[in-house]
Amino acid sequence: MKVAIAQLNYHIGNFESNIAKVISAINEAKEQSADLIVFAELSICGYPPRDFLEFNDFIDACEEGIEQIAGECTGIAAVIGAPSRNTSVKGKALFNSAYFLADGAVQSIHHKWLLPTYDIFDEYRYFEPGSACQIIEYKKTKIALTVCEDLWNVGDSPIYSSAPMDAMVEKSPDLIINISASPFSHNHREDRVDAFKENAQRYNLPIIFVNHVGAQTELIFDGGSFVMNSSGELIKELNYFNEDQVYIHTDDLNAKRIVQNGAGKLERMHDALILGIKDYFGKSGLTTAILGLSGGIDSAVTLALATRALGKEQVRAVLLPSRYSSGHSVDDAKSLVEHLGCYSKIINIEDITMSVEATLAPHFKGKKPDITEENIQARTRGLLLMALANKFGYVLLNTSNKSEAAVGYGTLYGDMAGGLSVLGDVYKTDVYALAHFINRDEEIIPLNTITKPPSAELRPDQKDSDSLPEYDVLDQILEQYIEKRLGPNEIIEAGYDPELVARILKLVNANEFKRYQTAPTLRVSSKAFGMGRRMPIVGKYLS
Amino acid sequence: MKVAIAQLNYHIGNFESNIAKVISAINEAKEQSADLIVFAELSICGYPPRDFLEFNDFIDACEEGIEQIAGECTGIAAVIGAPSRNTSVKGKALFNSAYFLADGAVQSIHHKWLLPTYDIFDEYRYFEPGSACQIIEYKKTKIALTVCEDLWNVGDSPIYSSAPMDAMVEKSPDLIINISASPFSHNHREDRVDAFKENAQRYNLPIIFVNHVGAQTELIFDGGSFVMNSSGELIKELNYFNEDQVYIHTDDLNAKRIVQNGAGKLERMHDALILGIKDYFGKSGLTTAILGLSGGIDSAVTLALATRALGKEQVRAVLLPSRYSSGHSVDDAKSLVEHLGCYSKIINIEDITMSVEATLAPHFKGKKPDITEENIQARTRGLLLMALANKFGYVLLNTSNKSEAAVGYGTLYGDMAGGLSVLGDVYKTDVYALAHFINRDEEIIPLNTITKPPSAELRPDQKDSDSLPEYDVLDQILEQYIEKRLGPNEIIEAGYDPELVARILKLVNANEFKRYQTAPTLRVSSKAFGMGRRMPIVGKYLS
Repeated sequence: MKVAIAQLNYHIGNFESNIAKVISAINEAKEQSADLIVFAELSICGYPPRDFLEFNDFIDACEEGIEQIAGECTGIAAVIGAPSRNTSVKGKALFNSAYFLADGAVQSIHHKWLLPTYDIFDEYRYFEPGSACQIIEYKKTKIALTVCEDLWNVGDSPIYSSAPMDAMVEKSPDLIINISASPFSHNHREDRVDAFKENAQRYNLPIIFVNHVGAQTELIFDGGSFVMNSSGELIKELNYFNEDQVYIHTDDLNAKRIVQNGAGKLERMHDALILGIKDYFGKSGLTTAILGLSGGIDSAVTLALATRALGKEQVRAVLLPSRYSSGHSVDDAKSLVEHLGCYSKIINIEDITMSVEATLAPHFKGKKPDITEENIQARTRGLLLMALANKFGYVLLNTSNKSEAAVGYGTLYGDMAGGLSVLGDVYKTDVYALAHFINRDEEIIPLNTITKPPSAELRPDQKDSDSLPEYDVLDQILEQYIEKRLGPNEIIEAGYDPELVARILKLVNANEFKRYQTAPTLRVSSKAFGMGRRMPIVGKYLS
Repeated sequence: MKVAIAQLNYHIGNFESNIAKVISAINEAKEQSADLIVFAELSICGYPPRDFLEFNDFIDACEEGIEQIAGECTGIAAVIGAPSRNTSVKGKALFNSAYFLADGAVQSIHHKWLLPTYDIFDEYRYFEPGSACQIIEYKKTKIALTVCEDLWNVGDSPIYSSAPMDAMVEKSPDLIINISASPFSHNHREDRVDAFKENAQRYNLPIIFVNHVGAQTELIFDGGSFVMNSSGELIKELNYFNEDQVYIHTDDLNAKRIVQNGAGKLERMHDALILGIKDYFGKSGLTTAILGLSGGIDSAVTLALATRALGKEQVRAVLLPSRYSSGHSVDDAKSLVEHLGCYSKIINIEDITMSVEATLAPHFKGKKPDITEENIQARTRGLLLMALANKFGYVLLNTSNKSEAAVGYGTLYGDMAGGLSVLGDVYKTDVYALAHFINRDEEIIPLNTITKPPSAELRPDQKDSDSLPEYDVLDQILEQYIEKRLGPNEIIEAGYDPELVARILKLVNANEFKRYQTAPTLRVSSKAFGMGRRMPIVGKYLS
């Protein structure tokens, strides 16, 4: 049996586009004489559909789409993910299902057993867990059909009390198919291969794994669908960050190991961020980005990524110097713009900040300058960038990094403004590493931008290190608290200064109110701010 | 057996304060010779603790707190909610538990079976469901211990496939205790009474229901703990919106019905919003609010509520007129401030907006004035209010209403700025109704503010109705889409104009990106924007 693996870029709720893509893939597979084509989890509606699932109208559209696609399945069968209605009076209203389509009709519907409800996942919010043993037999091949998390009950301390494959293996399947919506993080490819290897070896079965590719707001799906033999070796691996459609014959499922995808952390993050920007704009019907360029590293890396994602004609860089901007910052920003060949302009903010300060002077009598005046500068820049965005239909890209977002080193409605945060899940030390990666063949980001000490330039001779620890230490502590979810005692035991740990954790917790109001952030780590990290604002823990 | 019902206002993560309150309530109950005292769900850490639950350190603090409280339970027993660790290698790491404390020690731990994971609830994110039959026998009374949702598997189409009381009733308990964290919405009291009545009658048992009171960021817990007889009649009802501790003897559990709490929707919303503001400030260690006063209804109602919540000395109203502000708006705002006796000032924004327009003029050449210039005014106001907030340590209250938030009739970083949205879950028609409620004894909100046509006053002679349908129609359509989750066809079938329905639903969906960045919103309806309504931003459904 010849199996087509279709790794497509879907768009949440865009049924017309999703269905057209699926049908086009089926037609290509037919031309290649495939017997079966496999699509990803919830392909029909895109992932994650979130509370759209609570609308009958939305589920109707999914069901109509599946009917339409089934009609195309003549001479070929398909496995495709879609929600299905729970017809029992008890339990949640929906299942997260794999539909088996053949002979122009829906042949059977198989429900996901294990519903991820952690980090960015909310599946038990919508779905009833399945419990039926779901083996399909097609062209003399017995296939165990699983949906994503069904194969993730792995490791020493599994979070579910049963694994569906333990039931299905009793029926002696020849093959596991796993349709997934497995989002990117820079270390997730290895996690996936490990988890699936554990399954392949435990059940002594080959696995076909089909993932989404493409970004949906903050979540980036990296593709990387694969075929694994029953020893847990990859024998086929699809593209990362691009659509792909490949074929494999079931006779070849125990072929030998291939060389695996060799991209490292920085290349993956780089490619993921570019896809994230590109799909945010493309799927929103937007074309042009605007951003404020300070001469610093964050806006430089953001501009380089945006230019690659959207094209240099579709990015507007604006330099917004004040009395505190150093000459080298403006020069560095100008060099960068020159290297990238994108459009830029300079708008001095002095007249406006002076007007704001004059207006406020009678109300600030007797008060010394403080962070208020720094915020006024940042908010003036935000106001000007948003005015340009509004007038010309651009979208403002936010350039804050994860280290700043973590400790609240940014101004709400000022430098924290923007429709999409590009680097909000990239620690400052990784922003530097990304800059080096971008410069690997030629100097795009000016070296001076990389080597000078970081500064917000909101008062004379300001340096980030005046108020924050050095970023290499800060980022290590943040990673232990945020990604590894270690508490203060565990971090201190790892050898960090107790006072510093307490201070940083307090800053993180006390700034939840700021992060609550920031733009959606492209997720590239295993724990990003936003939908995957849900913290109380009014709380008093480590703060 | 004499039972104390302790309805307390906890603070998330503030173990010191929560434990002190619990111990003080135990001491009072001892003085009253109570045999048992009952606290609410997850009292020890406050509700919802959200991802704090993922930190070992946080769970350690909960366990230490329970040990400390158990030590106080001599001569009295207690039921109290706290997380407990799952000691099995399989399943989620925690249970949501009711601890039974007596003789100075933990006697037994009982786990919640049904884990709400919908709307604002995420419990399956953290907890493994319980399955053990949890009857305790104390002083010859057999008590079925349940936690909140355990009694909510009701109605014709229950969302769980089993109800724990079906198992527990086999052991012939005398009484059900339900410890809860049941948040306010303006119609939720009736829902609660109905759900518990169904349980009382089905199992023929009286119920003691103990709720939280107090607000935690957006969620407001209204209290209203009660005792219900086995016919489903309320025989005791605790305070709403205040702490309370009452006593009942188990011999009296089948007493006669009492007159039930008679507050209507508006009074409840009014009291809930005041508690929401008060606790947001109090629990954040903040004292003083600032807000922009336009002369319109939304800022007027917000100011009246804030003044009641914080005291007139702790609220700063700022009038920020522009060339488009009508004389009557300034007069109305001044009258309001006079009626409330709070502090106010006037800051004209003209100089700044002119400076912004002058700075942008070379970049806007050949472009006509449009919404950009309106946004500049709104953002100038936001900038000034934030500058005052930063300089003096105030928190900006957002004054947007739910109708505006729904259709995106507001400026990001402008009038949508603020640390807390007071009216973001109150439709415009209800804002008017609240104004009348506030004025029920005397004219606080100037009548002219209530009777004049609503306008953002961002261009000459602007009216909301220039770009939006009348609010009574708009709000009805919004309520069907948002609260009732009806789709376009269902709303049109209810008799609304198809084009208008399509236009409004499109506006709601297309403005998800704005709501994503707005302040946390005090929740007073059954479906508020924020944590309870999770929608894709980059999607294409009805948009």
